[in-house]
Amino acid sequence: MENFSFYAPTYFDFGKGTEKNVGKLVRRFGGTKVLLHYGGGSIKKSGLYDRVIDALKEEGIPFVELGGVKPNPRSGLVYEGIELARKENVDFVLAVGGGSVIDSSKAIAAGVEYEGDFLDFYKGRAEINSALPVGVILTIAAAGSEGSTNSVITDEKTQTKKGAGSDLLRPVFSIMNPELTFTLDPYQTAAGATDIMIHVCERYFSNTVECGITDRLCEAVLKTMVYETPRVIQKPDNYDARANIMWAGMVAHNNICGVGREQDWASHHIEHELSALYDVTHGAGLAVIAPAWMKYVVAIRPERFIPFATEVWEVPFDSINPMETALAGIGKFEAFLKSIGMPSTFSEIGAKKEDIPYMVDKIFSKKEFEGHYVELGREDVTSIYNMVADI
Amino acid sequence: MENFSFYAPTYFDFGKGTEKNVGKLVRRFGGTKVLLHYGGGSIKKSGLYDRVIDALKEEGIPFVELGGVKPNPRSGLVYEGIELARKENVDFVLAVGGGSVIDSSKAIAAGVEYEGDFLDFYKGRAEINSALPVGVILTIAAAGSEGSTNSVITDEKTQTKKGAGSDLLRPVFSIMNPELTFTLDPYQTAAGATDIMIHVCERYFSNTVECGITDRLCEAVLKTMVYETPRVIQKPDNYDARANIMWAGMVAHNNICGVGREQDWASHHIEHELSALYDVTHGAGLAVIAPAWMKYVVAIRPERFIPFATEVWEVPFDSINPMETALAGIGKFEAFLKSIGMPSTFSEIGAKKEDIPYMVDKIFSKKEFEGHYVELGREDVTSIYNMVADI
Repeated sequence: MENFSFYAPTYFDFGKGTEKNVGKLVRRFGGTKVLLHYGGGSIKKSGLYDRVIDALKEEGIPFVELGGVKPNPRSGLVYEGIELARKENVDFVLAVGGGSVIDSSKAIAAGVEYEGDFLDFYKGRAEINSALPVGVILTIAAAGSEGSTNSVITDEKTQTKKGAGSDLLRPVFSIMNPELTFTLDPYQTAAGATDIMIHVCERYFSNTVECGITDRLCEAVLKTMVYETPRVIQKPDNYDARANIMWAGMVAHNNICGVGREQDWASHHIEHELSALYDVTHGAGLAVIAPAWMKYVVAIRPERFIPFATEVWEVPFDSINPMETALAGIGKFEAFLKSIGMPSTFSEIGAKKEDIPYMVDKIFSKKEFEGHYVELGREDVTSIYNMVADI
Repeated sequence: MENFSFYAPTYFDFGKGTEKNVGKLVRRFGGTKVLLHYGGGSIKKSGLYDRVIDALKEEGIPFVELGGVKPNPRSGLVYEGIELARKENVDFVLAVGGGSVIDSSKAIAAGVEYEGDFLDFYKGRAEINSALPVGVILTIAAAGSEGSTNSVITDEKTQTKKGAGSDLLRPVFSIMNPELTFTLDPYQTAAGATDIMIHVCERYFSNTVECGITDRLCEAVLKTMVYETPRVIQKPDNYDARANIMWAGMVAHNNICGVGREQDWASHHIEHELSALYDVTHGAGLAVIAPAWMKYVVAIRPERFIPFATEVWEVPFDSINPMETALAGIGKFEAFLKSIGMPSTFSEIGAKKEDIPYMVDKIFSKKEFEGHYVELGREDVTSIYNMVADI
């Protein structure tokens, strides 16, 4: 096990009706004037918007608001939010939504406190030394941003998705009411589940040996997702299944599943080019890329695919031909993704084979290798894209 | 799943050599004058004491010290610590040791800020509204106090172990260097491992259904302990095994394994009377009590013992006679405890059968039932004690 630090100071208020506590929580964590940040009209239709406003008013907390966050959140709205927050002397950002809204809120929170261009953080040109506190009311179980250090923003100038991370970006509180996810359609639900599972896989596929505790925690989250996802697809208002998935999404990405080990993240980076270019739902893009990554990588380095198969997918170990075990695990994962309605090819997500060289160029514009479990060069990543473009 | 809140803001600095960061961490978390609290001479013999002093001096942080914490920490030394901390205007308590030192430090930290008797918190007569920050350098993997809200102190007047809990008692930082546990003897190591496992079991045996994510996390910790414990017993300086156990001990008790569900805690409370009366190592006491609790309770309510057997102990499910499966799991757990050198009877820990009525009286002095998975009355607890006193 490698040395690590772990600091996850988010206060989680989990369960039915917890959104009514938002005013008190903003107050507890020092907010006196709030930027309320959200996406489209769904929180207004559902009544959540009104409940949030009421809870803020009840505590006498003034707010300004900025809606309009889109999936794969854009730099343009972040600039707008930073300007608004400064003009209005806001000292707290409240994200009401899923990963895109939270990531956009984190970008605003850090950007307000920085004199330069907030994208410097995302381009690796500056470190985050200060940020406004961010609070969250989560409406989609997927990104794990409600408990993570991370934020991903699409730079509109270059159509590139870039990530930034800092302990200062961990939300100070996250309100997680599984009922708020009842209205997600099966596609969004399945894409969220896929994202959660790949957050774990990026950590599970590691060259660090002797990380038994995190291995077992990773498997715990994956097994939960295998069990619960079909249940919510079948019955969208299954509270307990929604609850298990929502909490699993946090556990998958606050890094309790990743400490002490090298992590991979190739699938995420290969996917990011798809969602930046075609505005694909990130989880659906991962459903296309991750199994291809697995099938490519298993041939080079099968080791970790054995416990993935035996522990997560209950494949019996074939001691005569362990590669069969490894491949059977990947096969079960692919079948699972198909069963929950996820795509597996470029054509299903509107991606085009002729763009592959462009995407590969972008990935390798600043680095020679992608991933860690197996270091992939340009040709490797081209092959992975081709595996799903050719079908 | 039940509604819950979860707030675990401890900063963990994990790995080789991390104790050298203690000065910087005290500074980061606002300490300007430290009460250094520890147990016997082992940290002086090992050189840890000198390294800690050097790190504090390097940051120019003045300190006073109070050693002498014993296993099953006593109220007398807590009073002494509170007085010293007040006299010396200390604003930070640094615990260097295992669960006893940390629990004693937490008691001092809360007591300094309270005008009344600190034991009020432990007797349920007052709530903790303020406490000095506590930092930890952990030397024993067992209690999980390095990441938990809890503290257990023995009231010397009544020879009773009592617990207090508050988010304010979570350490602000915990330094966890697995190398510091190399010198623990096999008995201490095994007792620590038992404590870690029972911290999980108290949460796993629950009447809350549909808590799949926490069920799987509990099993993850238990499986880790089953794998790693024999490895450190065999080779005390196996760094990776020590590391996995140390981190598992934190995960077992910071309540990530317990959120959203009813918890039991009967075994702990039944054991507390043993360690209060005979000064037994808590983990060794649990090794005697917990299997007896299981054997008594399984007859009344076998449900949760089935996954305990199949998932943790890899017992095949006997669909014709599921009770056989349940009993086989308990049997495997008992055999495991024996294999790591843990006791299973009163005589091995110096406990006396004639004291059973006295211990039962103490447990039921303020309540009618003990535990939640199965509510146990006086006769039930008497039977459980007798099961291990009779052998």
